[in-house]
Amino acid sequence: MKQKLASLQERINQQLVAHLHTLDGRDERLLSAMEYGLMNGGKRLRPFLAYVSAEALGGSFEQVDAAAVALEMIHSYSLVHDDLPAMDDDDLRRGKPTTHIAYDEATAILAGDGLLTAAFEVLAAAPVYQPSQALALSLLLARASGAAGMVAGQAIDLANVGKSMTLEQLERMHRHKTGALIRCAVLMGATAVSYPLAPELEQALVRYADAIGLAFQVQDDILDIESSTEVLGKTQGADIALNKPTYPALLGLEGARQKAAELCAQAQAALEEVPGDTSALAWLADYIITRDH
Amino acid sequence: MKQKLASLQERINQQLVAHLHTLDGRDERLLSAMEYGLMNGGKRLRPFLAYVSAEALGGSFEQVDAAAVALEMIHSYSLVHDDLPAMDDDDLRRGKPTTHIAYDEATAILAGDGLLTAAFEVLAAAPVYQPSQALALSLLLARASGAAGMVAGQAIDLANVGKSMTLEQLERMHRHKTGALIRCAVLMGATAVSYPLAPELEQALVRYADAIGLAFQVQDDILDIESSTEVLGKTQGADIALNKPTYPALLGLEGARQKAAELCAQAQAALEEVPGDTSALAWLADYIITRDH
Repeated sequence: MKQKLASLQERINQQLVAHLHTLDGRDERLLSAMEYGLMNGGKRLRPFLAYVSAEALGGSFEQVDAAAVALEMIHSYSLVHDDLPAMDDDDLRRGKPTTHIAYDEATAILAGDGLLTAAFEVLAAAPVYQPSQALALSLLLARASGAAGMVAGQAIDLANVGKSMTLEQLERMHRHKTGALIRCAVLMGATAVSYPLAPELEQALVRYADAIGLAFQVQDDILDIESSTEVLGKTQGADIALNKPTYPALLGLEGARQKAAELCAQAQAALEEVPGDTSALAWLADYIITRDH
Repeated sequence: MKQKLASLQERINQQLVAHLHTLDGRDERLLSAMEYGLMNGGKRLRPFLAYVSAEALGGSFEQVDAAAVALEMIHSYSLVHDDLPAMDDDDLRRGKPTTHIAYDEATAILAGDGLLTAAFEVLAAAPVYQPSQALALSLLLARASGAAGMVAGQAIDLANVGKSMTLEQLERMHRHKTGALIRCAVLMGATAVSYPLAPELEQALVRYADAIGLAFQVQDDILDIESSTEVLGKTQGADIALNKPTYPALLGLEGARQKAAELCAQAQAALEEVPGDTSALAWLADYIITRDH
């Protein structure tokens, strides 16, 4: 399965570069910053989720490429903007200078805007989808990533730096900030091969995705304490330094580990209602809570 | 005609608020900043262009609303981001504090991201279009506003602050920075009522739009010299203070006025090949080079 993850990472990386070069970009430095923000050595979790969700429903990877590219463009733009001095003010991401450090702040803002816009261009131009299907994918992505989803999550996050949060508030923040796009990845992968999605199938996929989305965050918080800067590729202990609310802070380290395991079990249970070969989805749920970076 | 402009400004303002409130936004401060950036007292030139282009082709305003909202959301997000300290660093727009002054920098970045994303949500969710038509509108908007259009224009602009530019370089910058979205407004209005557009009609509309788009910039440069801060609602002389390349700097004030008049005449000539009642489009071409703010 690790090989499958690596092979799909390779696939999405090739697709990202190929799509970037079809954009007819008109400013070399801007395009270069967009590529820098996009080819960031990321795990490509969202594309992987889209590919293997489609696979479980009997679809081909070719049907998923455009959706996966759009997802990762959105995810990458959000990292570029979140790292900005006015936001999280991060100089380092996965061991490399962040985009505004490698280029400059204005270019990083524009590169983010360019990637965000490109995501919707890719979906609108993809010849592989029926028009109504492409629109459904576009709507899923916009709702998950905008003011009802990811962007709201970042706003909630920034508003709560240095403040104490209840478990409920912390979950609400994560459900928006990262959960919405992880759910979207699963639903876009499924929608790319089966449109419209049957409601029961959609509900099972949502239960799976929401559980792993939250588990991913819990594990992130645990790694911020347990791992090292070298393994993480970002500054270890950054959450604590910023006095950010975390699961270990609210539940203790052991409580957080238990929470992650419970969420993983919920994800596995949801997969029982998904037809086809769900082994990659099941493996990912385990991987998320056992990864060390 | 001025009354028509005012009445369509009223229409788009109502549509913008209505669409904003359907977004299911999850953070009050973020939504408030998005509304602040959107309801900015702007001229609503792009929606007006979309409405009257559709009208010339015999369409109704109802067919244009969603396209007009998406256009203005894109335009507004670009103003919010362009005003940021790392970009043009403007404290004032149309006599009001810019979004990052009224809120804060992080919220302004997120509000811009939210508005950009919302534009594509509005198009994907609009029940008034056929799916293939909505996709065509989405593709027009993405191409005009992204790395091949507006975002590239802003990058070119920033890269040339304090540098001398030839007339050709200045035009290239403006064609991307503002021209692409003005062309897009005309084509989206037309596409909203007549899809697919006949190639000859599309070419005539592009000629009209490109001429008024450039004329708008030439007049903007003239007003930066001739008008006052009170009438402009932004700092008079800002271009000169920033040592930005302008048409009057390259052509002289009289040469710039002549250039604007020539572009206006080109626009009027292009309208001869557009069927229907093009009186509002013709009026706008004159208005653009005679306005005082």
